[in-house]
Amino acid sequence: MPNLKIDADRLWDTLMETARIGGTPDGGIRRLTLSEEDRQVRDWLRAACEGLGCTVSVDELGNMFAYRPGSDAGVLPVAMGSHLDTQPTGGKFDGVLGVLAGLEVLRTLEAAGYVTRRPLVLVNWTNEEGARFAPAMVASGAYAGVFTPDYVNARTDAEGVSFGAALDAIGYRGAAPVGSVTLGAMFELHIEQGPVLEEADKTIGIVTGVQGIRWYDLVVTGRAAHAGTTPMALRRDALCAAAELMLEARRVARTHGALATVGEIGVVQASRNVVPGEVRLTLDLRHPDSAVLDAMEADIAAFVTGSAFALTPVRLTRIWDSPPVAFDPACIAAVAAGAAAEGLPAQEIVSGAGHDAVYTARVMPTAMIFVPCKDGLSHNPAESATPEHCAAGAQTLLNAVVAYADRA
Amino acid sequence: MPNLKIDADRLWDTLMETARIGGTPDGGIRRLTLSEEDRQVRDWLRAACEGLGCTVSVDELGNMFAYRPGSDAGVLPVAMGSHLDTQPTGGKFDGVLGVLAGLEVLRTLEAAGYVTRRPLVLVNWTNEEGARFAPAMVASGAYAGVFTPDYVNARTDAEGVSFGAALDAIGYRGAAPVGSVTLGAMFELHIEQGPVLEEADKTIGIVTGVQGIRWYDLVVTGRAAHAGTTPMALRRDALCAAAELMLEARRVARTHGALATVGEIGVVQASRNVVPGEVRLTLDLRHPDSAVLDAMEADIAAFVTGSAFALTPVRLTRIWDSPPVAFDPACIAAVAAGAAAEGLPAQEIVSGAGHDAVYTARVMPTAMIFVPCKDGLSHNPAESATPEHCAAGAQTLLNAVVAYADRA
Repeated sequence: MPNLKIDADRLWDTLMETARIGGTPDGGIRRLTLSEEDRQVRDWLRAACEGLGCTVSVDELGNMFAYRPGSDAGVLPVAMGSHLDTQPTGGKFDGVLGVLAGLEVLRTLEAAGYVTRRPLVLVNWTNEEGARFAPAMVASGAYAGVFTPDYVNARTDAEGVSFGAALDAIGYRGAAPVGSVTLGAMFELHIEQGPVLEEADKTIGIVTGVQGIRWYDLVVTGRAAHAGTTPMALRRDALCAAAELMLEARRVARTHGALATVGEIGVVQASRNVVPGEVRLTLDLRHPDSAVLDAMEADIAAFVTGSAFALTPVRLTRIWDSPPVAFDPACIAAVAAGAAAEGLPAQEIVSGAGHDAVYTARVMPTAMIFVPCKDGLSHNPAESATPEHCAAGAQTLLNAVVAYADRA
Repeated sequence: MPNLKIDADRLWDTLMETARIGGTPDGGIRRLTLSEEDRQVRDWLRAACEGLGCTVSVDELGNMFAYRPGSDAGVLPVAMGSHLDTQPTGGKFDGVLGVLAGLEVLRTLEAAGYVTRRPLVLVNWTNEEGARFAPAMVASGAYAGVFTPDYVNARTDAEGVSFGAALDAIGYRGAAPVGSVTLGAMFELHIEQGPVLEEADKTIGIVTGVQGIRWYDLVVTGRAAHAGTTPMALRRDALCAAAELMLEARRVARTHGALATVGEIGVVQASRNVVPGEVRLTLDLRHPDSAVLDAMEADIAAFVTGSAFALTPVRLTRIWDSPPVAFDPACIAAVAAGAAAEGLPAQEIVSGAGHDAVYTARVMPTAMIFVPCKDGLSHNPAESATPEHCAAGAQTLLNAVVAYADRA
């Protein structure tokens, strides 16, 4: 293993430089996928990679691949990267760190004149966030064959603009069919987006997998009625029923050591003096074990079909099921060794959030590296990671990628 | 007491005729205040009243007064009426019945050549519903001195159009200052908008008053966090806190024999994979006794300042307080006698909803008459009252108004 050291200051400066593209006064970034700001940061990344002698290709969904040759031409490249798009009120690190740390790896290798055995590829996946075009991680999903390009192109934003039209508008529709740029492995560095590493005082999370996620849409149907004239005993209040349901979902999650979140709720034809007749809400369940997700779903389904809901029936529709993901043992081992080589405090962790790595894991050996973020906060302008943690993550990424690329 | 009988078929035909103005395919009416449809029904009413020899005046807020002289010129008129505007998805009876039954009274008197001692006035109040311009009952409120004309004119609808501009646009701004058309008493016939009379199998509700109404805005502040990475124990979920609050409000209402309704709720910057950081909701409390409303408010305030809400503080703001109203004993007696004279099954009742009569009661003797509506349903295209109940209500109105107008 060569003694290659990333430049912590250069990495930080790069993070701060690109943070100005879509930067907001509160210190965050608003860089929605396929927006003008996204075009600018893509142009910036392309120029930076080409400046290192890399060849940048773009596929038909805008996924960007910067290729650095290896010494052995007959093997698949090892990839690293993440995404440069953000939430509407996003922070400076979510996704961005994984791409710019990958760039820092390339810069370090270039400065040292070091050529890995396998080629390296830095990837910037389109629309990881799903904030402008739902669902999330749609372009890495298409890379993995989960979505068709037609499906992805037809996604529309709140203004009715399609993914395809937005991609064309910023000039980032490439010629390569999605999935045609073949990769041999994938390493993704990311902030944890949770409080576990910070609470445990660890610098590196060796991510062994991603918990399963199930999304549901729920509709509670009661009967709209006059708030001033309808006795409590005669009400079929859809919102009170929804309140019972929300507290039960929380109880079920606690019982199973899992997560349950109702993130959106709305009363149909709401008025402050009308008893709600219909309520729509979302439910997000997460756990690393599919059997536990099955049990939670059954618990909640049983609750809402019980006698307490006879007058306010609930329709529960599972709209998305992302099974738990187990990352590749060799990739995980490379990450663990990469952290150990630096003497960094590390622990294994399961990702609570979805990432592009969930989809790449379906088609190539994959692992992830987490670094702590302040208070576990992300998707927020106050999202924060220290320069030291960013550098530790980038060094671990370098160690893992170079070791994996150089192995026989 | 003369033997004056209203014409049930004529009343019903009139209800069905005007229901076409703003009528919707589902049998309801969409006749928002100061809209083109409102102008049409106002023109229709003016023509109908002038056809009976009445003088129609309009005040500066569009309130319409059709004046029928009495035999004694030196006394204040006795008024009857309600409102012709509807909710966006309103029915055929709410408000409309009170105005058209008043017209039927005038037609019956005119056909019989009967002149009451006091003059009679049929009133159509502007914007009772408050659906286009909040708050409700704003023009009768201004008549009673509760709101200034400037305040009323400045109310804006969802498109930013002001009450004043909309009033000018339909040509219904009269010259008379609001309140200058003096009245000696007010009788308002209305559908109950609740299930009490129907359940008790009564035809006439002798309305003795209106329960107090308090409106609150609530803001629950937690901390937005990632749904996939934030352990349940570390969450400050504003929506779960709101759910606890909603169920407590229901419990408090049941305990006090009162009403509590959360009609609107929303998560600020909602996303299905974000733990809600801020939730806004409304609360509507109603009871005929102010002391009970005080106690309910105290119960809820104590609940949300308890330790369970330490991490999700609640801001509770009372935005409207409509005190309980007791109607005038002589007017109530006139209604009771009017129903009894016809042998109609009647009972005393407290109105759960607000009405223009709440405001007129501040400045003149007032009472109301209720008739049943199917399933207690109103503010809904399916709102329904039978021809027999409408006729019984109109006859009771005639009896009460004539008796009150003829008394010494």
